[in-house]
Amino acid sequence: MLDIEEFRKAGYQAIDRICDYYYSLEKLPVVSQVQPGYLRKALPGKCSIPVSHIEVDQKNADSAPEQGEDFQDIQDDYQKLILPGVTHWQHPSFFAFFPTACTFEGVIADLYISSAPNPGFNWACSPAATELEAVVMDWAAKMFGLQNNFLNSSGVGGGVIQTTASDSALVAVVAARSLYTRKHPEIKQEDLVFYTTTQTHSLGVKAGLVLGVQCRALEVEAEDQFALRGSVLRQALEEDKERGKHPFMIIATVGTTSSGAVDRLGEIGEAVRDYPDVWIHVDAAWAGVTLACPEFREKAQLENINKYADSFCTNFHKWGLVNFDCSTLWVKDRRYLTDALDITPEFLRSKHGDAGTVVDYRNWHLALGRRFRSLKIWFVLRSYGIHGFQNYIRQGIELNEYFASLVRASPTFELVTEPSFALSVFRILHETPDSQADGSLSRDSLNELNRSFYAGLSSRPDILLTQTMINGTFCVRFAVGAARTTKKHIDEAWTIVQDEAAAAVKKWSKLQ
Amino acid sequence: MLDIEEFRKAGYQAIDRICDYYYSLEKLPVVSQVQPGYLRKALPGKCSIPVSHIEVDQKNADSAPEQGEDFQDIQDDYQKLILPGVTHWQHPSFFAFFPTACTFEGVIADLYISSAPNPGFNWACSPAATELEAVVMDWAAKMFGLQNNFLNSSGVGGGVIQTTASDSALVAVVAARSLYTRKHPEIKQEDLVFYTTTQTHSLGVKAGLVLGVQCRALEVEAEDQFALRGSVLRQALEEDKERGKHPFMIIATVGTTSSGAVDRLGEIGEAVRDYPDVWIHVDAAWAGVTLACPEFREKAQLENINKYADSFCTNFHKWGLVNFDCSTLWVKDRRYLTDALDITPEFLRSKHGDAGTVVDYRNWHLALGRRFRSLKIWFVLRSYGIHGFQNYIRQGIELNEYFASLVRASPTFELVTEPSFALSVFRILHETPDSQADGSLSRDSLNELNRSFYAGLSSRPDILLTQTMINGTFCVRFAVGAARTTKKHIDEAWTIVQDEAAAAVKKWSKLQ
Repeated sequence: MLDIEEFRKAGYQAIDRICDYYYSLEKLPVVSQVQPGYLRKALPGKCSIPVSHIEVDQKNADSAPEQGEDFQDIQDDYQKLILPGVTHWQHPSFFAFFPTACTFEGVIADLYISSAPNPGFNWACSPAATELEAVVMDWAAKMFGLQNNFLNSSGVGGGVIQTTASDSALVAVVAARSLYTRKHPEIKQEDLVFYTTTQTHSLGVKAGLVLGVQCRALEVEAEDQFALRGSVLRQALEEDKERGKHPFMIIATVGTTSSGAVDRLGEIGEAVRDYPDVWIHVDAAWAGVTLACPEFREKAQLENINKYADSFCTNFHKWGLVNFDCSTLWVKDRRYLTDALDITPEFLRSKHGDAGTVVDYRNWHLALGRRFRSLKIWFVLRSYGIHGFQNYIRQGIELNEYFASLVRASPTFELVTEPSFALSVFRILHETPDSQADGSLSRDSLNELNRSFYAGLSSRPDILLTQTMINGTFCVRFAVGAARTTKKHIDEAWTIVQDEAAAAVKKWSKLQ
Repeated sequence: MLDIEEFRKAGYQAIDRICDYYYSLEKLPVVSQVQPGYLRKALPGKCSIPVSHIEVDQKNADSAPEQGEDFQDIQDDYQKLILPGVTHWQHPSFFAFFPTACTFEGVIADLYISSAPNPGFNWACSPAATELEAVVMDWAAKMFGLQNNFLNSSGVGGGVIQTTASDSALVAVVAARSLYTRKHPEIKQEDLVFYTTTQTHSLGVKAGLVLGVQCRALEVEAEDQFALRGSVLRQALEEDKERGKHPFMIIATVGTTSSGAVDRLGEIGEAVRDYPDVWIHVDAAWAGVTLACPEFREKAQLENINKYADSFCTNFHKWGLVNFDCSTLWVKDRRYLTDALDITPEFLRSKHGDAGTVVDYRNWHLALGRRFRSLKIWFVLRSYGIHGFQNYIRQGIELNEYFASLVRASPTFELVTEPSFALSVFRILHETPDSQADGSLSRDSLNELNRSFYAGLSSRPDILLTQTMINGTFCVRFAVGAARTTKKHIDEAWTIVQDEAAAAVKKWSKLQ
């Protein structure tokens, strides 16, 4: 067990090793090269265990040691056994999924948070945790241009930090369902339905599974850039009403995972005009942070978010410079959360909570305890300033536009959708043996070629991209956003993409 | 924005300041002395902002700064503005709620976790995160004596880290409900019911609220030390069956929050014998860690957990030396989780996931992303060893037994229930004006006296205890478990408790 001075020594060493990690990051393979089961295999014979412990350890290869080990050995094992099994999401050549933020400001905030932990379920637990969350959620809301009733200081709506966008959406669905069933107590859960699109993140389907409530995914079209149109929603509302169903919510997305599609919030808002009990949740987990820049607010539909959204979510831990986890959720009326989630047993009562003078955030989310995550946002927004935050977002979008311009100019590839924020979705466009006389290409064959292309890409250690399937078309996603990515890394990525495409086409031609 | 060398400097300073914090911890007030709203008031005029920034800051008192600030100022503000608003859960005189663990091993693990974050939703995200979780959950299961099919290595059941015990319980309820409704697809959600007791943590009621499923709290009696008896459960099952309800779960507790009650798992197991579809979840959020010590396994009912529990939860982040958050959940059949929660869209598919050779933990919890929390358990269990972990648990229980012996020997107080693990529940027992001729005391008057006693205790900065109400009796809880608490602190606490009791009785006598 570490005492204070041993902690100082170990802490300095950890800081130094994190510095080393970032100095060497670019030279590491992006993708961990270990095979399934590597860790269990590595544990028994690990030679960093002092000789006197070997016997114990070999006997208990699958157990915790009986006697404590030297912390230096443990810290060394992080380098030796864990880091090789880490995929480096902060690597400048990581273009997969969406970015996961890591700033040194966030690391130091996490260090403080961990050093004086408290479960934060009410104001009295640790007033600073609740109060700072209320403050920085207002800072963020203002930075994004959210209107006044989303602010904690409005006393009406407010913002709360959740773990992930899935949690944020689940909370919103629970609040929406609770609001609906309080107004319509005669309605059975089986008759409720909420909407997503086929392009919505899995958080929609999962919320339906968790709550046992029907989630209906509406179709979207390539010609609309995979955005939900009001007419489609209106038709679904009418169909479901006729079938005796009760629609209570639509989860709209600003920046879908597959292609960065932006649902038409204005049309959606108009479509639900005749259904005043339908809650609109806007999931902008990835793209919401672009609202910090005035020039992206039209594309990210700020005006319609403010006009129509009952709740809005974006994740600072994706593209927002705050280390995982930190999903931010705002609601226009906090009572919809607390009416759905408030439970206050005697052992949780407090003087200030009873008096209503403080916010007890436990009634704003599903669990009871919560980490003091607002400190991370505070450190990051103060150190970067709004300008620094904006510059970082702009840089990601510019780098993606550069990549998209290379794709556009190439005869080998096509952009499957228009680039969206910092995401490009593309594929090889190449004649296939079953191409039609009129020049049209077979989708199945092209999918096969592109799967082969992606298999080549994904077998490389020096870059990571992800695949997706949009309305039957297999595509490759290129998402920019790691803090250390520069034009040089885009150029390198482009070379790799061209090489792998050439190899795939060559292999393909041979096989035919 | 910090570069690597600035991070090194800031990181060293943070480590040093955490050392200072722990050297001074005992001299700090346990309870933060700030008033609601202190932070917003403190922010505008904060003098650590360099002069050139004051104007900006005063204009934007409620906004993030336009330009980034010097990190030294930010770090200083943590000391100046945040720490005074922190209630010190690791203070040796913190006897409230339940402890929140903090070890230096956990702090350093959190530092590494934060320095290379990834969302961990599948094996490929970062193989080390998934594999280490599978390993340390087996270590912990073995340390607690859980039977083989709770182990990940069994390939049948397994363990997974959740955020809090509320999340663990919610996951268990979702799995139980899903299993039940798959077997009985004709049953409406409205007809489902699950059980807790009046002493169960709010996690039960909250799961019911979140899922829109009825949660029925069964009565427990003082003569049973507030434990749920099989006869009570059996009667409820029969009543509900007659009313056309469908019981699908019982949440039993080992160590309730109010009084540390231990539901009679053997009787519960027997009672549901005729209801094979009823899932038994054992919530041992606080007391589960005592299973590490063979001598507490009978009281904590290890044998019946192994025999009857479908799922079992304990929180390492309470009394288990691992920094918040880290709730551990085991199930006897992992398919019950994945059948209820598996969603795998194209963009989450991976080679190894498709082949079934790896665990994808996203299908074991409600959200998608997850922090790499297993590193904390690994660092702690290796540094402490099983012996060190056991000694720490034993020390808490011994210190509580010492406190309970003082209460027992005093004419002023009574233990309301038998001390349970490291928790004592007590109150002043004193003649009141409306005491009966037969010597019996009025419960209402005693409650009033004890509320006054607790008000005195809770107004003090140098100690923290919490109140509770058990079956109409107002009591004070004394929970031991902070790592730095020694006999000296128990003695000091006892002096304070006596002083405040004397003051309350004196005030009381004057008022009559």
